[in-house]
Amino acid sequence: MTRTSMQFPMNGEFVTNCWYVAAWDHELIDGRKLARTILEKPVLIYKGASGQYVALDDRCCHRAAPLSMGRIEGDDVRCMYHGMKFDPSGKCIQIPGQDRIPPKLGVRSYPVVERNHLVWIWMGDPALADPDLIVDYEPLGDPNWRGIPCYMHYDANWVLIVDNLSDFAHLAFVHTNTLGGSEEYAYTTKPVAIERLEDGFRVERWHMNADAPPFHKKVIADKTAKVDRRNIGRMVTPGIFFLETMFTPAGSGAETGKIVNARQYRNCQYMTPETRRSTHFFWNYLHDFDLDNPNIALSLRDSLIEGFNEDKAIIEAQQVILEADPEFNLLAIGADAALSHFRWLLNKMKDAERAGGTAPVQPTRSGERVPA
Amino acid sequence: MTRTSMQFPMNGEFVTNCWYVAAWDHELIDGRKLARTILEKPVLIYKGASGQYVALDDRCCHRAAPLSMGRIEGDDVRCMYHGMKFDPSGKCIQIPGQDRIPPKLGVRSYPVVERNHLVWIWMGDPALADPDLIVDYEPLGDPNWRGIPCYMHYDANWVLIVDNLSDFAHLAFVHTNTLGGSEEYAYTTKPVAIERLEDGFRVERWHMNADAPPFHKKVIADKTAKVDRRNIGRMVTPGIFFLETMFTPAGSGAETGKIVNARQYRNCQYMTPETRRSTHFFWNYLHDFDLDNPNIALSLRDSLIEGFNEDKAIIEAQQVILEADPEFNLLAIGADAALSHFRWLLNKMKDAERAGGTAPVQPTRSGERVPA
Amino acid sequence: MTRTSMQFPMNGEFVTNCWYVAAWDHELIDGRKLARTILEKPVLIYKGASGQYVALDDRCCHRAAPLSMGRIEGDDVRCMYHGMKFDPSGKCIQIPGQDRIPPKLGVRSYPVVERNHLVWIWMGDPALADPDLIVDYEPLGDPNWRGIPCYMHYDANWVLIVDNLSDFAHLAFVHTNTLGGSEEYAYTTKPVAIERLEDGFRVERWHMNADAPPFHKKVIADKTAKVDRRNIGRMVTPGIFFLETMFTPAGSGAETGKIVNARQYRNCQYMTPETRRSTHFFWNYLHDFDLDNPNIALSLRDSLIEGFNEDKAIIEAQQVILEADPEFNLLAIGADAALSHFRWLLNKMKDAERAGGTAPVQPTRSGERVPA
Repeated sequence: MTRTSMQFPMNGEFVTNCWYVAAWDHELIDGRKLARTILEKPVLIYKGASGQYVALDDRCCHRAAPLSMGRIEGDDVRCMYHGMKFDPSGKCIQIPGQDRIPPKLGVRSYPVVERNHLVWIWMGDPALADPDLIVDYEPLGDPNWRGIPCYMHYDANWVLIVDNLSDFAHLAFVHTNTLGGSEEYAYTTKPVAIERLEDGFRVERWHMNADAPPFHKKVIADKTAKVDRRNIGRMVTPGIFFLETMFTPAGSGAETGKIVNARQYRNCQYMTPETRRSTHFFWNYLHDFDLDNPNIALSLRDSLIEGFNEDKAIIEAQQVILEADPEFNLLAIGADAALSHFRWLLNKMKDAERAGGTAPVQPTRSGERVPA
Repeated sequence: MTRTSMQFPMNGEFVTNCWYVAAWDHELIDGRKLARTILEKPVLIYKGASGQYVALDDRCCHRAAPLSMGRIEGDDVRCMYHGMKFDPSGKCIQIPGQDRIPPKLGVRSYPVVERNHLVWIWMGDPALADPDLIVDYEPLGDPNWRGIPCYMHYDANWVLIVDNLSDFAHLAFVHTNTLGGSEEYAYTTKPVAIERLEDGFRVERWHMNADAPPFHKKVIADKTAKVDRRNIGRMVTPGIFFLETMFTPAGSGAETGKIVNARQYRNCQYMTPETRRSTHFFWNYLHDFDLDNPNIALSLRDSLIEGFNEDKAIIEAQQVILEADPEFNLLAIGADAALSHFRWLLNKMKDAERAGGTAPVQPTRSGERVPA
Repeated sequence: MTRTSMQFPMNGEFVTNCWYVAAWDHELIDGRKLARTILEKPVLIYKGASGQYVALDDRCCHRAAPLSMGRIEGDDVRCMYHGMKFDPSGKCIQIPGQDRIPPKLGVRSYPVVERNHLVWIWMGDPALADPDLIVDYEPLGDPNWRGIPCYMHYDANWVLIVDNLSDFAHLAFVHTNTLGGSEEYAYTTKPVAIERLEDGFRVERWHMNADAPPFHKKVIADKTAKVDRRNIGRMVTPGIFFLETMFTPAGSGAETGKIVNARQYRNCQYMTPETRRSTHFFWNYLHDFDLDNPNIALSLRDSLIEGFNEDKAIIEAQQVILEADPEFNLLAIGADAALSHFRWLLNKMKDAERAGGTAPVQPTRSGERVPA
């Protein structure tokens, strides 16, 4: 019975020297000015006329008016209160009625990079913002995979969502009728051991000779055939989760490597703190079969939204309870190994930042592949 | 001109070593999981399959999910996040996928007892929770009295409601058109002296040869006949009020003990702090005549709701005003004797608790009967 | 590049020894009890039966019930909780059921004076409340001027509205389609120098041979003729703004003093802090032509509301941004001369109050006329 402190990350401290997902690229088409708070900083994000992505403090340095109420001019933005204009680096390049512009006048800009439809932002020290540190997810750009990019808003600290994803045990109690999970199985089976990694963890779980779970049943022809199911979960600090799911006909021997007639899914999820008590949640649930049938992706999207809403109800209730009594100590059980390891890594990242470390605290993925 | 501090009880401190009303029993039928905050603690209350009442912290000890989103199983409850199961004492009796359960794992349980349709809870030291200390109210279980159990929620500290009930003077100004009260009478009459008791106070007031008040008029045949009215109010610390009301034909000599053709009412009211700024208010207004006519009770209920809403408007306005300026000192007048005595008793109870006293601070009712 | 601290006035401190507009007189007809918070104090304002204006703390000294839920009796007000009665000086003059009234029992009263339809209140030391210090505005009572008295509520600190009015530069970016203003003009013209005064500032701006701005076009017959426009702005501490606007036919020589065929407007605006984050805003936009056509005033009112709402959107956004990060330092530009001077005066007024000065801090207008 160990106690898990909720101090960090519930207190408004964040890991900053890392890439976070700021938006899907489709949120920025047609010159849209996206006002989005990230790590408690209001940010304006837009795609300039040249195609360049720009992220600036959403607060004019002059009188604090929001630049998101301004006007995009080429790659620049003009504050529509007193007309000051800023370039993509945040530098002020025009003051109406004034010739001289103080050289330091401007707003903060944030490194921002697009990769496979995701727009990533670096909120910490810009000198450390190496695009090679972005954890790219190839299926998002691969024509052999189809899915719908989705967004959901949580009124909860992001780590409560990480916690949720860190434990398959909740499937049996929260998602029986949606994403699947069996109470009987939960009572009689030990939790699968996780692989502790230096940037997160990995867990692989087989479920043999079972009914197809509801979300899968909806998109396949033979709804009664038993299936073998393999799930590989991969969590990456500070807020990325990949889930690789494969269904094969029961008894066809997939567990020995003989994979035939498989139906596969690739799921990526990104948790970006909005504030200490709210989170941006980006995700896509991709499939590799019947690619010409658009209803597959729509059905999966709807199933996942239904399932995530089941999580959301509990997670937002946790947030209310934990905020009401910040001194409350959570008690860990055996199934919390993944969660504990992940929090330990988070604390290590945060400690490194506090110590003023100059090296990026997000480790490079040496020799290790993200599942794809 | 004395000053009455609002420090305690507006500051979130509460008398805890006493019984509070948590619910009417009808709120817990059919296995309903009642989530109710009491003294700023979220509590789950339910009636188990065996008929046993159970009150537990509404917060799983594992990840703080609310147990009220869980599932009742017999007399136990299962958290529907990761499946942990708790018995009525709060002890954890099952962890899916884990054989050994740490002996101390569990949630706090609260003593809970039903008496004449009221479910009472003890939020303080459970070792002191003696059911004999419950201030039972027999008319609630007596077939000679009829009424409808009611609940109202106040956005105000509970003591502001106690204050309201402590002073008949407000009847003339707040309730002229509902519960009755005469301005003329208020200007020309001295407040009735209260009897200071060791657990509250008692006040008896006669009003001779008057019109029947509106709520009474609605349920009697002869609406013009003058009446003599006797009110006996009885306040019991920390938040119970009984009101015994009798109407007799004017001049029939009830004040000499010759009671004929009386119409009587019995009213009980219970104030249970939800938070420092909100209160659960339970009440029933019982009558002893025309028992086969269900409209009497309905009419009385509606009249009382109308009257209580007149109080609620003022009391909730007081709360807003007092919160805006916590340093404000209220100035007492002569009519505040009951209120002052009651606050003095409350402070004594609270001081006794602070001193770590082990004896129940709620005095037994030695030789003294609650009016019934 | 200087830094302007937002400490005072965003912190809930206010200049108190001065007259603020509390209401338009039409808000108090028919014995209306106006409950209005001014400088974070809840105040009840009413016009007694004798015609006397009264302003009292909106909080009974007994149990803190709001007097605005009470009843006006002549020039007095009775609290309708326990019936205590107060005269216009705030003194308690009746306690039902009690003969002796403690001489100091009462509520605070505030000096209140009506001038040309505006009801002014003095929230500071009443000994300093000299009615001669009221900055009267004669056009409000002059039959040669017509307009509609208006009220608007801002969810923003009052000084952000002062800031807005202190800079004509924002017209070009915020009000192009309503009150008028040209971006081209803003880019090519230096800001007009202000005249620094001991109680505010004055600024005069000519705009020659221009299109009539939208609000003016709507109320004149010849909508295409070019006009010469003169604006004289006059700001008076702590929260009064006057704007005198004149349109003459382009080239008719108004700038040399030869004024013919002029259309004139007189605009007064009053900012009264409600709280540190909200403001009462009173205004009237008067005209001196076509006085028998009531639609002129209505059209001007609607144009101004449209324009003020453009300001309101930005100003309330500023408030949110500044509250989220109170440490943020605004950076001044050349156009901020008026704003900086005004804040310097405000700080001087506030410093004088803090030092306990007994002389009124609002300077008399020695030899200097408010524009009328």
